Amino acid sequence: MSPPIIDRLALIGVGLIGGSIARAAREYGAARTIVATARSPATRRRVAELGIADQVVETNAEAAKGADLVIVCIPVGASGPVAAEIAPHLKAGAIVSDVGSVKGSVLADMAPHIPKGAHLIPAHPVAGTENSGPDSGFPELFVNRWCILTPPEGADKEAVETLRAFWATLGANVETMTAQHHDLVLAITSHLPHLIAYTIVGTAEEFSNVSRSEVLKFSAGGFRDFTRIAASDPTMWRDVFLHNKDAVLEMLAQFSADLGYLTRAMQDGDGDALFDHFTRTRAIRRGIVSIGQDSAAPDFGRPHPAKPLAPLARPYAADSE
Amino acid sequence: MSPPIIDRLALIGVGLIGGSIARAAREYGAARTIVATARSPATRRRVAELGIADQVVETNAEAAKGADLVIVCIPVGASGPVAAEIAPHLKAGAIVSDVGSVKGSVLADMAPHIPKGAHLIPAHPVAGTENSGPDSGFPELFVNRWCILTPPEGADKEAVETLRAFWATLGANVETMTAQHHDLVLAITSHLPHLIAYTIVGTAEEFSNVSRSEVLKFSAGGFRDFTRIAASDPTMWRDVFLHNKDAVLEMLAQFSADLGYLTRAMQDGDGDALFDHFTRTRAIRRGIVSIGQDSAAPDFGRPHPAKPLAPLARPYAADSE
Repeated sequence: MSPPIIDRLALIGVGLIGGSIARAAREYGAARTIVATARSPATRRRVAELGIADQVVETNAEAAKGADLVIVCIPVGASGPVAAEIAPHLKAGAIVSDVGSVKGSVLADMAPHIPKGAHLIPAHPVAGTENSGPDSGFPELFVNRWCILTPPEGADKEAVETLRAFWATLGANVETMTAQHHDLVLAITSHLPHLIAYTIVGTAEEFSNVSRSEVLKFSAGGFRDFTRIAASDPTMWRDVFLHNKDAVLEMLAQFSADLGYLTRAMQDGDGDALFDHFTRTRAIRRGIVSIGQDSAAPDFGRPHPAKPLAPLARPYAADSE
Repeated sequence: MSPPIIDRLALIGVGLIGGSIARAAREYGAARTIVATARSPATRRRVAELGIADQVVETNAEAAKGADLVIVCIPVGASGPVAAEIAPHLKAGAIVSDVGSVKGSVLADMAPHIPKGAHLIPAHPVAGTENSGPDSGFPELFVNRWCILTPPEGADKEAVETLRAFWATLGANVETMTAQHHDLVLAITSHLPHLIAYTIVGTAEEFSNVSRSEVLKFSAGGFRDFTRIAASDPTMWRDVFLHNKDAVLEMLAQFSADLGYLTRAMQDGDGDALFDHFTRTRAIRRGIVSIGQDSAAPDFGRPHPAKPLAPLARPYAADSE
């Protein structure tokens, strides 16, 4: 077989994404050696116990030393300081990348530290679950999901190609765009939905006439769908909103105008306006399912276990009447 | 075994909910005979083909005749006219119920038509998927979900108990409250989430700088979660918003205030306010999972198929280098 794309892979941060990269890189043969580190001793210990990296080291500097690809898998607010730490230890030709949900600020914060001869190629795998920590990762996380690369102008073509091949080996579809465009696209496909979900899940607790227990019990009416993304990692999402403020505010303004339109239709009793809008949104769902970006199974494929039939409740049982 | 709770069950409307009641009532032995009707000849034909009812009849009047329990499973806006149609055909002691997501207006619209000697007990099974039509139903839909009964003041206790037992036989947990309280609770656990989801899914199409194709491709960042409920039946949801306007507007006012608070925190760079809010909402998700109202599996248990390993990409393969 062809040798692994990366000889020595360094992961800085081993949460859901870092931990999934480690598992996938090994499972799919994308890296020969995986070295990992994390800020907290407890996480480093856990990564060593899980055995998902070949080496666990104590510092970011140590991890970066001799690595062919360093992927920084931490909340985007910490990108700058980490780049400063690893910079003096990067070998010539090393690729430095990340997995952050914001790309403009990551590029701005990291680029000034990266030495000539090393290549900064930010990236964002659009995949995840609501869980976090090293135990939550799994190798299939990136399969058939998109990974967006945002190489800066004049980036080394070979380095971009290597990173593309690395993510493709993990099962991802890879696309390239500018950091600025990425931040606009993700503001509507990810950041605004998270802001809205975080908001409404908080709102549900603020009514004196509806109890928390009622909110939980009757959440299958729709509310529970929002609670999944409102359970995402608070540190990661704090940093996303602080670092992609402008694009999120732009999308939010449009959302508020649209909410005003539907509210007005409701107030005016304009059933046709509501019906037309609801018919259009149904088509978007079909589009997502048809390109394989969500399950076609109803209810996301949530389990609906059958009711166990008690012997006495079985219809047409022998002792019937 | 004990005889079925209901001798003759009439279903008026056979979509997702009506079709699931038919299947569940038979599977779990809740009714001896099931008669069904639907407004459109195509639906009636399909129900007959599926064989999920014992009889398919052409009119609401015919369905109601001789039924012990009539369940009206149609958009709430049609409740009044249907009650008027069936009223002259109800037998003494018949229970008339429904499955609508709004209860105040259903009670107000149906009650004037129901004759003395028949019992109107509105109900709302809090369960569903984004699909609609007779083919989308399945017998397990109500298992471990809540069904809320909203008997009017002075309702016949025996009729309420019969309806409770019917839903319990279908696997539901049954709770009783006033129609007014129901409409407040569902405004926050179901109606407002749908309004928000319908809004944001529409918003995503309105940017000249982000294409529809990008919205679909990168929807796994969070957006796709909203598209499921924004794919729900347009007629049903039009009627919900037209008939529970006041409660939805009350919840919407609080939501908008909360969204303003998070927006301001983002604008002010107040990371602590964001972090604290996101930590609280995480706890609500845990509550829903712990009472069994959502799956504990990450990502709602969505399938994450493994990448097929091509022979040449297999690590440590025999022909390695």
